[in-house]
Amino acid sequence: MPGYGWISLTTDYGTFDGFVAACHGSIARIAPDVRVIDVTHHVPPADVARGAFVLAQTAPHLPPSVHVAVVDPGVGTARRGIAIATPNGVLVGPDNGVLIWTAEALGGIEAVHELANKDWFLGDVSRTFHGRDLFSPAAARIALGTPLHDAGPALDADTLVRLPDPVVTVGDGWLESEVATIDRFGNVQLAAVGGLLAGLGPDLVVNGNVRARRGATFADVDPGDLLVFEDSAGQAAIAVNNGRAVVVLSVRPGDTIRISER
Amino acid sequence: MPGYGWISLTTDYGTFDGFVAACHGSIARIAPDVRVIDVTHHVPPADVARGAFVLAQTAPHLPPSVHVAVVDPGVGTARRGIAIATPNGVLVGPDNGVLIWTAEALGGIEAVHELANKDWFLGDVSRTFHGRDLFSPAAARIALGTPLHDAGPALDADTLVRLPDPVVTVGDGWLESEVATIDRFGNVQLAAVGGLLAGLGPDLVVNGNVRARRGATFADVDPGDLLVFEDSAGQAAIAVNNGRAVVVLSVRPGDTIRISER
Amino acid sequence: MPGYGWISLTTDYGTFDGFVAACHGSIARIAPDVRVIDVTHHVPPADVARGAFVLAQTAPHLPPSVHVAVVDPGVGTARRGIAIATPNGVLVGPDNGVLIWTAEALGGIEAVHELANKDWFLGDVSRTFHGRDLFSPAAARIALGTPLHDAGPALDADTLVRLPDPVVTVGDGWLESEVATIDRFGNVQLAAVGGLLAGLGPDLVVNGNVRARRGATFADVDPGDLLVFEDSAGQAAIAVNNGRAVVVLSVRPGDTIRISER
Repeated sequence: MPGYGWISLTTDYGTFDGFVAACHGSIARIAPDVRVIDVTHHVPPADVARGAFVLAQTAPHLPPSVHVAVVDPGVGTARRGIAIATPNGVLVGPDNGVLIWTAEALGGIEAVHELANKDWFLGDVSRTFHGRDLFSPAAARIALGTPLHDAGPALDADTLVRLPDPVVTVGDGWLESEVATIDRFGNVQLAAVGGLLAGLGPDLVVNGNVRARRGATFADVDPGDLLVFEDSAGQAAIAVNNGRAVVVLSVRPGDTIRISER
Repeated sequence: MPGYGWISLTTDYGTFDGFVAACHGSIARIAPDVRVIDVTHHVPPADVARGAFVLAQTAPHLPPSVHVAVVDPGVGTARRGIAIATPNGVLVGPDNGVLIWTAEALGGIEAVHELANKDWFLGDVSRTFHGRDLFSPAAARIALGTPLHDAGPALDADTLVRLPDPVVTVGDGWLESEVATIDRFGNVQLAAVGGLLAGLGPDLVVNGNVRARRGATFADVDPGDLLVFEDSAGQAAIAVNNGRAVVVLSVRPGDTIRISER
Repeated sequence: MPGYGWISLTTDYGTFDGFVAACHGSIARIAPDVRVIDVTHHVPPADVARGAFVLAQTAPHLPPSVHVAVVDPGVGTARRGIAIATPNGVLVGPDNGVLIWTAEALGGIEAVHELANKDWFLGDVSRTFHGRDLFSPAAARIALGTPLHDAGPALDADTLVRLPDPVVTVGDGWLESEVATIDRFGNVQLAAVGGLLAGLGPDLVVNGNVRARRGATFADVDPGDLLVFEDSAGQAAIAVNNGRAVVVLSVRPGDTIRISER
């Protein structure tokens, strides 16, 4: 199996402790020439859906990589550790749904193996830090070209844990969608893909009382006004030119937003 | 054109989303052997002056690099993307003033080219994420040694957008200066260069009522007392030994500070 | 002297300024092939003990490295800069106690040298930024294989500044320990090593009034209940399954916690 020159890390470990560095260390000890791209370590603790969203939107823009995602409130329980092969990279992490949307963004699941081979791990595997002891070492071995079937038994993809799909509904002149994420700039990204906006006219109203306009970039509306657009991840999104849509709309991830024609 | 082994990134993207990783990804896909130094991604959103200050003070301490700065509230508008050649590196970013102080810190502008050649970009260039689709790919190509004139037409340096120069005034026994930045330790850095302190005696007063002393390092004054010094970036600055000058003085970037002899 | 392929950085510089990048730059200018692992830059300003704890727990999981720790409220004073050789890496930083626990975690002090050779430093050494001008350059030279005795005179290890050892007391059916750190997840890590829990039974009470149980991972207790366990750094620790022990116990680093059998 050909290897990978890159490993990406997505975790809820934060950057105030040494957890992320310990993962880098596990990788460096096994695969010193592999390079690491940190996607983010600021997934809110145990927010599996947020980790799943951010990696799915980022991984397609990285070089072919082994992507490690560790948002893992079930660490140390019977939940499985898995590696998923896709046409454009391998995913490593807990079987709790954090990986599947990325697998789909990278072309779909080709094979899944359980991480069961103790020879793949590093040191005495702790019960509380599988990022360091299990997932990072596994990613390093995969990056070196060790075949996945050496990690453990093949799993049926249908048995993998999935997060509930976010609710998106489209009608005649309207669209309802869960909020997927709020970004650094206060832009509100929806679970609906951007293509669903094609059915809507230019003059819109959000949640029944806030006027907005279709456009392509922030300056397509006046400062302070609401823009509905397809964002850089290909999702439907709402922004305020020179402002923060999250404040204007007062929403958070998981809330439902309705966009309709005026 | 010889290339560069290093690219630096300065943005207002934060580290909670996958934006920074996507820029790393764009670089890695084009120039996998180039290494990236993250200057900071915590420029306050759209604070062009802050981005300009931090890069200008940091770039001289990096190896010769292609420096990318993306603080870009005008993304997707007609504002130009540019690359500036200097004797000690190349700068890439929007033409909004974020690059010029760094160009001057690296020896001055030798040439400017507009980023107009679509072959330099990556994927369908989004209207809202030029860091990933345009500036990082351009930096990667420059690091590989592609000549700047291949990026697009040469521009007259006099046409570049400049930020207003911060106000600094020196008199007989006094100095007035805008506050440039406040750092992690609460030290107040002025826009005035450190050499301007040479005209002041050892016993000073800040803003008319806070006593301070000239010195070289924090312990040159008693704990809790104010120090006026030339900081590690060569700027005039005010610190409190074992304390936070920003709290004692209650100022923020853009405010004017007056230092005078007692 | 054989060199090192890796340098780690632990500082209180934060990530909002360019300080960390300037350290990366100093390393890259001297030892461009060496790779850097950032342990954390979010040590609270001047919190030497926190810096000492986090590096001591992380360094054993990194490849053999030169570890730089800069939590340095005495920068610019007569406090010494030092390099400590251990069987598993070299430590570089101020002589204020920030390095010694890591030296012990890496097998003990083999030799100590003062950083006194001005040829090792970079540029005009500032009085306030030794991370950039002195410690990072020294680490880069050590990574390249320059022998430690070239850095400056050997020092007697007994003369090094030590932090006070945290208070840990063990009795019949009870354990008292200072809190070492609180992590991102609100877990409370004690200065007591995990082995000291062996003398305690399964049913415990913390600080006299909060019931807890011994276990190995979070799910060994019901959601919301307290777990006493040996954490992934080998320390005694207290967690709440699906919760934050720091909130339940209302403690902070330096406080004393008593765990006793019910």
